[in-house]
Amino acid sequence: MKKLFKKIPGSIIAPIGFMAGGVFCDIKKLGTGKGSNKGQKRDLALIVSEAPAAVAGMFTTNQVCAAPVKLCVEQMKRGVAQAVVVNSGNANACTGKQGMRDAKAMTETVARELGISAEKVFVGSTGRIGVTMPMANVKRGIVEATKLLGIKIENADAAAEAIMTSDTRPKQIAIEFKLGGKTVRIGGICKGAGMIQPGMSATGKRPAALPQLHATMLCFITTDAAVEQKVLQAALNEAIAHSFNRITVDGDMSTNDTVLVLANGLAENKKFTVRSSEFKVFQSALKYVCLELAKKIVRDGEGVHRVVTIRVNGAKTIQDADAAARAVANSALVKTSWHGGDPNWGRIIDAIGYSRATVVEEKIDIGYSAPGLKKILWSLKRGQPTKATFKELCTAVAPKEFELHINLHLGKADAVMYAADLTEEYVDFNKGDVGDPSSLGG
Amino acid sequence: MKKLFKKIPGSIIAPIGFMAGGVFCDIKKLGTGKGSNKGQKRDLALIVSEAPAAVAGMFTTNQVCAAPVKLCVEQMKRGVAQAVVVNSGNANACTGKQGMRDAKAMTETVARELGISAEKVFVGSTGRIGVTMPMANVKRGIVEATKLLGIKIENADAAAEAIMTSDTRPKQIAIEFKLGGKTVRIGGICKGAGMIQPGMSATGKRPAALPQLHATMLCFITTDAAVEQKVLQAALNEAIAHSFNRITVDGDMSTNDTVLVLANGLAENKKFTVRSSEFKVFQSALKYVCLELAKKIVRDGEGVHRVVTIRVNGAKTIQDADAAARAVANSALVKTSWHGGDPNWGRIIDAIGYSRATVVEEKIDIGYSAPGLKKILWSLKRGQPTKATFKELCTAVAPKEFELHINLHLGKADAVMYAADLTEEYVDFNKGDVGDPSSLGG
Repeated sequence: MKKLFKKIPGSIIAPIGFMAGGVFCDIKKLGTGKGSNKGQKRDLALIVSEAPAAVAGMFTTNQVCAAPVKLCVEQMKRGVAQAVVVNSGNANACTGKQGMRDAKAMTETVARELGISAEKVFVGSTGRIGVTMPMANVKRGIVEATKLLGIKIENADAAAEAIMTSDTRPKQIAIEFKLGGKTVRIGGICKGAGMIQPGMSATGKRPAALPQLHATMLCFITTDAAVEQKVLQAALNEAIAHSFNRITVDGDMSTNDTVLVLANGLAENKKFTVRSSEFKVFQSALKYVCLELAKKIVRDGEGVHRVVTIRVNGAKTIQDADAAARAVANSALVKTSWHGGDPNWGRIIDAIGYSRATVVEEKIDIGYSAPGLKKILWSLKRGQPTKATFKELCTAVAPKEFELHINLHLGKADAVMYAADLTEEYVDFNKGDVGDPSSLGG
Repeated sequence: MKKLFKKIPGSIIAPIGFMAGGVFCDIKKLGTGKGSNKGQKRDLALIVSEAPAAVAGMFTTNQVCAAPVKLCVEQMKRGVAQAVVVNSGNANACTGKQGMRDAKAMTETVARELGISAEKVFVGSTGRIGVTMPMANVKRGIVEATKLLGIKIENADAAAEAIMTSDTRPKQIAIEFKLGGKTVRIGGICKGAGMIQPGMSATGKRPAALPQLHATMLCFITTDAAVEQKVLQAALNEAIAHSFNRITVDGDMSTNDTVLVLANGLAENKKFTVRSSEFKVFQSALKYVCLELAKKIVRDGEGVHRVVTIRVNGAKTIQDADAAARAVANSALVKTSWHGGDPNWGRIIDAIGYSRATVVEEKIDIGYSAPGLKKILWSLKRGQPTKATFKELCTAVAPKEFELHINLHLGKADAVMYAADLTEEYVDFNKGDVGDPSSLGG
């Protein structure tokens, strides 16, 4: 599948007609005066399309959700976007009516500077929870960002940096592929390192079928493909179901999780329906972009040393497969054993057993493989230890990334989770600095 | 309530007619020969009643459950016990048919040594998962333990020590109170420090109403009260619902969780029904014993520095109250903030929001108090930060134990959880020693 898509530089500015910019405007109010931004990374990003674009979105299903999420869900009804403004350092969550006024004011400032309608401006925030936005700084930042908008790689880099919080590195991707005879491009940036187990839906409401949910992750995707809004949303729903909604760092779902895709149509391909072969191609491309970005989040997760892909097969239902995979992915004991390079299948089968999935101990297989390899070293077959030696099992779980295979042998449903270990660094990082009220953040 | 009950020494040997003993028989097979048990703590406990006793039990609802649990559930059908044999160092879980044969052989060895029926002997195990029991050592241990049985405090101490795994100290209690004009006693020992979030039921099967479940904790309670088996089970169900099933250290429910209560009737009180005033007294006494023991487990949890009692009020349903409390209790981000002495209500409201409970952000109150005090320092009222300063909030969460109050203002249901922080020590302890295959344990 990957071969269909060619990686290209520039992330969000790679598609035709998109500009980006990122500035430092001291949203955490760290500064006290001149030179206060020395060494501070950017904290406000702006993404702008030359032409109005179809927009699709996915938002946290957390019942406690931030003002920018509420505003985006509202704006989504019109389905058109031309700009996205994003800040880090403040989540604008639990900020009441003032929070909503501030989110709106951000869109209005962007609209005024760009000479477009505020209804076409979307907004994302990440950072402290429960602190009112420093709007003077934010507005100053927006004005500056509009002046610095550009279509160069460094403009995309600046935006990718500006949305980071505890991330150690920016996360970007862009690909190019053929769609209905035309060359189209998809580019994206994302952030997220802690409070990561997204469970997003298009409305921010929980579908009945949604599994147990739990990140601030933000992701902004641009494409020059011509795609109708409903088709774009359908493609995004499927892409998120197989990417961001399948990752977990710490099992905590944020108040701010947001994914937005803007499709401005400047590649001039013919529009297509969800039943067309073009949809399949676009869908795969979008899924590929989302999954690559989602995996970057897990790899850069707070304190993460090891990334584990959990593949559950043979479950009675998809819900069961998901429940078993999430129980293992979020077990403190399993995660610490991964950190230790310890092939502790006892803890894994324990987590499977207490999950909501229906399982039968005597049918469970557990094994390990290197990423993408089919050769699996089984530690447990039908509930019983195999002849694999402890040393062999240790070797299997030693790499920085490995795959964990679980077969329940009860049906045909499967699920994948991209998970991480739990380390002393995670605890140390998140226990916060009591002297610093910024630790009130989410 | 406490004043009704007088604490007395001796735990399980405090009630009339109970004997106990504990020995070292090298169940982890650490030894290689003479002197191998130097400095090793005991690993096999025996509790024996002079007379056959009514027995009630609660067992893990993990679908992957250990052989001793399966055997106890089977034995429970007869409702009579006279002895309990317990080992640490090996969980006898995921050991297949051999595991069941070994669990039975343990009861048969005890039966033969004591001259009683094997059907009246119950068994508990805790330790490594997936390793066959070293039965020669176990049988030798049982023979030795029967010789050392006694009614002295040191005999109870030896049994309490023998059931420990990662516990740093033995956990014991005994109380005395009046029941129907007679003085009766309840004593208990328990163990557990990691893999702790019990969800037990009388049959080991999940009741539909049971909340999300997740410990190896073992608890053995003796009483000389005369109580019919069904009445004893009813009292235990209620006691566990308010004690062991309300604690969490790491959110992991074990394959081996077991609570057994033996009531030998030697205090000669008149038997009572569940509708009697005597039942209320006995029920409160049993609940008190279970809750005191349960709290000891949280306080001695792996790497635990702080213990937090979470009180959720105003939920629509008990299930909602429980879901909100458990989401907060098991959030990695909330637990690390407790470790840091950080009053991070942002993370708390985030966890409440993603829980399965129905909540409305604008109605949520969050506050702190010292244990048992009614004066609450509110950090959030109706979804908005109060005027409490960061310093004041830090002072509120600084003690080794504090209470977290959450009011959802949606109904009348409430729930309590006894929870713990997440520390670097927990991670360090559980990442295991890769050189040591014993880390395969659960």
